Parts: sequence; C-alpha cells; structure tokens
Amino acid sequence: MDAPPPHALSHSPAAAARVSVDEHRAHIAALLDERLRVEHNDDAVDDVLLEDALGRLLAETVLSPLALPPFRNSQMDGFAVRAAEAVVGRPLPVMGTIAAAPGEVSALAPMTAARIMTGAPVPDGADAIVPVEHAIVTTTDAGETREVTGADADAVAVAVAVAVTVMVTDTVQPGAFVREAGSDLPAGGELLPARALLASRHLAALAAAGIDRVRVRRRIRIAIISTGSELAAPGTTLGPGQIFDANLPALAAAASSAGAEVVLRERVTDDAAMFLVALGAAAELADLIVTAGGISQGEFEVVREVLEPRGAWVGSVALQPGGPQATATFAGVPVLCFPGNPVSAQLSFELFLAPLLREDAGLPARVTESRVLTVDLESVPGRVQLVRARADGPNGITPVAGPGSHLVAAMAAADRIIVVPAETARLAAGSEVTAWVL
Amino acid sequence: MDAPPPHALSHSPAAAARVSVDEHRAHIAALLDERLRVEHNDDAVDDVLLEDALGRLLAETVLSPLALPPFRNSQMDGFAVRAAEAVVGRPLPVMGTIAAAPGEVSALAPMTAARIMTGAPVPDGADAIVPVEHAIVTTTDAGETREVTGADADAVAVAVAVAVTVMVTDTVQPGAFVREAGSDLPAGGELLPARALLASRHLAALAAAGIDRVRVRRRIRIAIISTGSELAAPGTTLGPGQIFDANLPALAAAASSAGAEVVLRERVTDDAAMFLVALGAAAELADLIVTAGGISQGEFEVVREVLEPRGAWVGSVALQPGGPQATATFAGVPVLCFPGNPVSAQLSFELFLAPLLREDAGLPARVTESRVLTVDLESVPGRVQLVRARADGPNGITPVAGPGSHLVAAMAAADRIIVVPAETARLAAGSEVTAWVL
Repeated sequence: MDAPPPHALSHSPAAAARVSVDEHRAHIAALLDERLRVEHNDDAVDDVLLEDALGRLLAETVLSPLALPPFRNSQMDGFAVRAAEAVVGRPLPVMGTIAAAPGEVSALAPMTAARIMTGAPVPDGADAIVPVEHAIVTTTDAGETREVTGADADAVAVAVAVAVTVMVTDTVQPGAFVREAGSDLPAGGELLPARALLASRHLAALAAAGIDRVRVRRRIRIAIISTGSELAAPGTTLGPGQIFDANLPALAAAASSAGAEVVLRERVTDDAAMFLVALGAAAELADLIVTAGGISQGEFEVVREVLEPRGAWVGSVALQPGGPQATATFAGVPVLCFPGNPVSAQLSFELFLAPLLREDAGLPARVTESRVLTVDLESVPGRVQLVRARADGPNGITPVAGPGSHLVAAMAAADRIIVVPAETARLAAGSEVTAWVL
Repeated sequence: MDAPPPHALSHSPAAAARVSVDEHRAHIAALLDERLRVEHNDDAVDDVLLEDALGRLLAETVLSPLALPPFRNSQMDGFAVRAAEAVVGRPLPVMGTIAAAPGEVSALAPMTAARIMTGAPVPDGADAIVPVEHAIVTTTDAGETREVTGADADAVAVAVAVAVTVMVTDTVQPGAFVREAGSDLPAGGELLPARALLASRHLAALAAAGIDRVRVRRRIRIAIISTGSELAAPGTTLGPGQIFDANLPALAAAASSAGAEVVLRERVTDDAAMFLVALGAAAELADLIVTAGGISQGEFEVVREVLEPRGAWVGSVALQPGGPQATATFAGVPVLCFPGNPVSAQLSFELFLAPLLREDAGLPARVTESRVLTVDLESVPGRVQLVRARADGPNGITPVAGPGSHLVAAMAAADRIIVVPAETARLAAGSEVTAWVL
C-alpha cells in the first residue's frame, strides 16, 4: 500500500486483534478521501446534455444568461391597454392581435387596445392587461353589433377573437397582469446553486434560461472484481463444486444505487495472474476498485495473496457478518476488499462504502428507524451484528432466517437491517433497536 | 373521445363550471385505467438481463430452479470430519485439501480428516467441520513435529496448510459448521415474490440461483409533446417574442423520475397539421401522451383546436396554478393535456399523473409532511392552491416568491409544495399545512 492506513495493526494474514467497525469506517473514509482526490477531485465534472442530467449533482453555481421572463409579457388572455386610458364607460378600439409567437410587436397606438394572449409580448406603450373577464367587448357579428360581458364566459372566449372595442368594468392599475422581464430572475442572477441534485424542476429552470448542457459532478467510477474459482456466471450450468456468483451483480447494482458509475465488472478465479490482469484494467478505468472474496485465512485466497505483498491491510473487523476485510491501493487507486460470502459482501458494501458514495453523489443518507423487536435476539458479544429483518406491523421488527452469511434468499426477503452494537450480547423481545431501511 | 369521461360537463371551450381536483383526478385515473389496459396490461413485460433489472418491478413470482446453497458446504476454514470419530485426545490424520473450486470431491476415508475451505463441498462421509480455532494441529516443519492450537491464530493459519494431524479440543456435534444444501431455500421454493422492486439484494438472490434474465413489468411508455409557436429549443438563440421551452425537458424528466419510459419528445408550433403529425407518431409509440400548452381560452390554442372536435374534454379545474386542463384519446391512446405555463405543467404532472405512474412502477408514494407556516398565506377561495415553498427549520415552511405560473426559477428553488385546500382563503402564520416533499 502506498500509504499505510491509520489502523495498520499488522500485515500478518491473521491479525490477532480485531479493529472496530468505527475504526475501519474511518480508515476507509480516509483512504478514499486521500486517494479519490487524485482523479475524482473537485474538477472531476461531466458536461452533459440536459436530457442526461436528471439525478446528477450540479458541479457549480449556474447564473442565468438571460432575464426570466426574457421580455414583458401578458399573464392572461385579454387586452393590452394603457392603464390611464382604460376608463370605465369609454370603449377603446381593438387594433389587432398579439399572439405568443415569434416576431416583433408594434407599439400600441394611443387610445387603442390590442388583443393579447397569455405569454405574448406586451407592446411598447401598453402598461396593463385587461383580462377578458374584466371587460365589456363589442363585436360585430354579420353586421350586427353586440356587447358581451365577462359573466358569459363562453361568449367572451369567442368574442375576444372578433372584438371591435373593449371597455373595462373597473379601474385598471398600471402593471396589472403584466409579467415584467426579470420578475422571476434578473439576467446574471443565481439560477441554481452548486450541488443541486438535478430534478425535473431544475431542468425546467435551466431550459427556460436557454441552457442545454450543464456541468455536473462526475460519478465515482467503480470497478467490481468478484473472485473465486468456484464461481460460475448466472445463466450457465453448474459443475460439481461450483456455485453461481451473486457478488458481481449485487455489488454492481449497489454501486449504481449509491450513485456511482460501474465501469468494469470482472469475475476471476483464484489465479493470481488473472486477478492481477483484472486489477490492472480496473486501475486504468476506475476511481475505486471493489473486490469480493479471497481475503480470509484459508488457502487459495487470491486477493490476500496478491495484495498483501503489495502492502494491503488484511485483517478482521468486529463485525458479523463481514469480519474479514482488507484495504489496499493498486497503481494509486484505492481497493476495498470485501469478503466473498454474498451476504457479507453486500452488507460490507452497505456499511462501509454506500454512505460515502451516496454523499459524494448528493443522494440523501440512508433512512434509519427505531423499531421494537418482536422476538429475543442473541448476538456475538464484541462484534457489531447486522441482522436481516422485516418490518412487522407499524413499529415491530422481526429477524428473517439465521445469521449465516450465505443466506442470499433470506437477505432478499429482508427489508430492514438491524444494527446490534458490539457490546450487546442479547436483546429481549420488546427492546428498541435501530434498523436501516433497505 | 372514444369514451366520454365521467365529468364531461361540456365540450365548450369555456365551460362555466369548474370541476374539482378530486373529480379530475378520478377522471384521469379512470381514463388511464381503461385505456392503458389495451397495451400496458398485466401481460406487458420486458425480459431483461439482470444487469438491466435494477429498479424494475418483478412481473411474476420467481421460484428457485435449484437449492440454495446447491450443495452441502463448509461454513469455516477448518477440517471435515465424522463427528463420531473426532474425539478429544485422538488425532486424525489429515488427508488432502478441499478447496472452494470446481471438481468432484472424494469421500472422506474412515478415521481421517480433510482440510476444507469456507464454501467448499463437504465430502461424503463427513458430517461436521472443525474450525481451525477449535483444533490442535500437528505439523512437520523441516522434519520437526510440533503442535499448534487455535490460541495462536497466526501460527494456525499457516499450520492448516501443512497439517499432518488434527485433534479436536471439544466434542463435535454432527452438522457443526455445515451448511446443508437447500438450507437457505429448497429447489422450487419462492425466491422472490411478484412485484418485488428489484434492488441489489434481489439481484444477488436471482444470480445465486443461476438466473440471468428476469421478466419485469414493462414501464409505461410516455410521449411528451410541447406546443407553442413561441417556444425555442434551449441551446439556440431567442428571437423576438420567443421563450425557451422548459416543458419538454421538465415533463420528460418528471416522467422518468416517476418510473415511466419516455419514448418520444416533440416540440411543435401552434400549427394543427404539425401537432397532428406529432400525435400520430406518439400514438404509435406510447401508452400515454402528455401535451403541454394550447388548451386555454385564447386564440392559437392548437391542442384544443385539434382535439376538441375529436371529442376531448377541455375545461377548468378548481386549481391554481393549473386551472386549464384537458383530456382526450387519440387513436385509442389516452392524452393528458396540461397547461403551457411551465409551473402549471409541472404541478399538473405531479398532482394528476405522477402518483399513478409511481404506483404502476412500484415506486413508493410521494412523501408528504405536516409543517407550520412561517408567514400568512392568502389563497384564492374555491381552488386548491399549490404553493411553492421551502422547509424552514425543522418544522417550519415558507413560500418562495409569488403564485405566478411562469416563475420557473422560484419553482426550482422550492423543495416543498404546500397544498392549500379549495375551501381555504387564508392561512395565518403558525397554521399547520400539508406539503409534498419534492
């Protein structure tokens, strides 16, 4: 390892002392903080099209290149007037129609009105809009003149199109129903703050300001390497002694869910050369490498075999499942090595890595709850235990199946993880526990 | 419209009566329920690779094609023995090593032990695993015989590899540290229930069972058509009278966020022929068409112009912003027509459509909160008002900017939407309000 981790107690394959969960978490945070900075620093941005920006984290404050709205426009369908000229009892002749459409708009001649549609530019000279509902309109229909008032909404809608004169039913205030240019945001104003997690409403604001590309924080690029000679790819047929590899799809999906980008997925046997090739490719592509398997104290532990001579910390964390853990750097890229039992691998990811990834991606922190145990629960003293469980009624929680780290079906059936503190050996039914919501 | 909506009060462009938000919501739900059934029915499934299945809704219950674990295997690094033969004080000769690796495993000869790694197949004849920590191991190192006990973890790890004999330190129970085949799930057992929203732990279970493709509910396919001659594409230069189109990116992103698939995005002018072409393409591709703009009572309202003669319901909902609303079907495909003001379009989508889409996609319902108003709030009586706001301290909430439906920057700055009931005209500071969390 290029830099020794804070708790590098021992490089022996079976460090006698266990490090605590908190120590290991801090160690991983420090390793990532130091190492990710090389490539995934504050300058690591992607310039993406608006249509690819949903869910991304804005890299920098965005100022609006134009005023919003960009020009003075009408808030209503109605008539553009000069407020001072729009007097009760005095009809104004209606000269033309202003649509919400491209093109220059002529100034409003004195003592006239213009039909105007919602969003259309208010003509120079005009300073107020009279909504159709507040007007008495004179129309000529087949040569016959008639008046229509706002009370007859159907007739008014038709009448606007053929209005000959318009007369207000009440005094008009200057500025009435006019949206001033820049009334939402002046040109140069802050449209969006840095680190906005882009949702549809943010994309609307960017688009309204004419922006079609945006600089977002680059996702952390993760390579996943699943190790184990016994592993077969799902979709193939198992030979004797083989099991299907659950770790590659699970860790890749967990990384995506936590806002990272999975740039490499490799399954390798317990062959050191093959693992080294995968590590080399991973270090080329990724900001962070995650491995599964190969770190416990048996033989054929390829991750330990390859990385320990290169300075990895390989040890034991006071955690169940997920005790065996290792960390390293390879070609300057941090490597987090999780155990190969699929439940251990998944829970190690959730405990040690997911919170850091979520924070980097600007995603909300994991939701935790207080719930009441429905049954007694034994725990191994001295280790944090992560217990797969299900919510049971509005406040209860019940463990599913046993603690075995191979119980992938039971893990899938869980919707909560109870976190039992290291000092706790037993929790009676009725005890309050803290649980992650999956 | 092929089937009249429940509240088809009037086909006139300016229906005098407003329908309530609840009525319109029920109308849209009924329209979608009836019309989406044609294509997007219970048989509408996608067969996707596991790596594309994250976040999708499982279409059917999945039974495990094999037992989990598929064969009896060791839970620990240690020694496979017959429990009855593993007696304190009697060393057993260690005959070979069983790795977690492909290949047949020979049966355990009587009165012997075998080194075994975690996950490796337990040989026929053996019925228990003795972890290294529970054993006294005799090794011959350069011809010299020595004993190692579990207390010396470092030495044990090395010793396992070269063990000559192994002796237990305590009685061994049959089945100890053995994971029986099917102990997680028997072959044919329910691996995942229908409608599981696939997360990493579900993909792990599917992969462990050898499954690499899965049938998921097809996403609702949505076409978005943004209408308005005044609209320019973001990234271009505005001419006089033009504004940038915020609706296309906002509605497309909102649809994606709600779990739908956007299959078409079109921007059209207020030209009926152009709109018809877009509608035709949309009806070919989509389960549901969403339009923005062109439904109010002014002139140049292309959506109304085209769809009203084809039986659309065009009317007014007791809602602000978002009063003008329309619904139709086109070539059998439901069309929801939202107003063109960008805030109105976004809030219409959130109010009327997003909850239905989220439910179909199996996503959790929108989070709502109770919060306390920090300021007085006026509302138009008789209309539900959707007020853009921000959380203010742990319990407070403060509106941002005014009610104008063109205030896209203010909408982007909001993180909550206060829902003011129709009957409420004024809320004093200190009132408790219900708010959506954006």
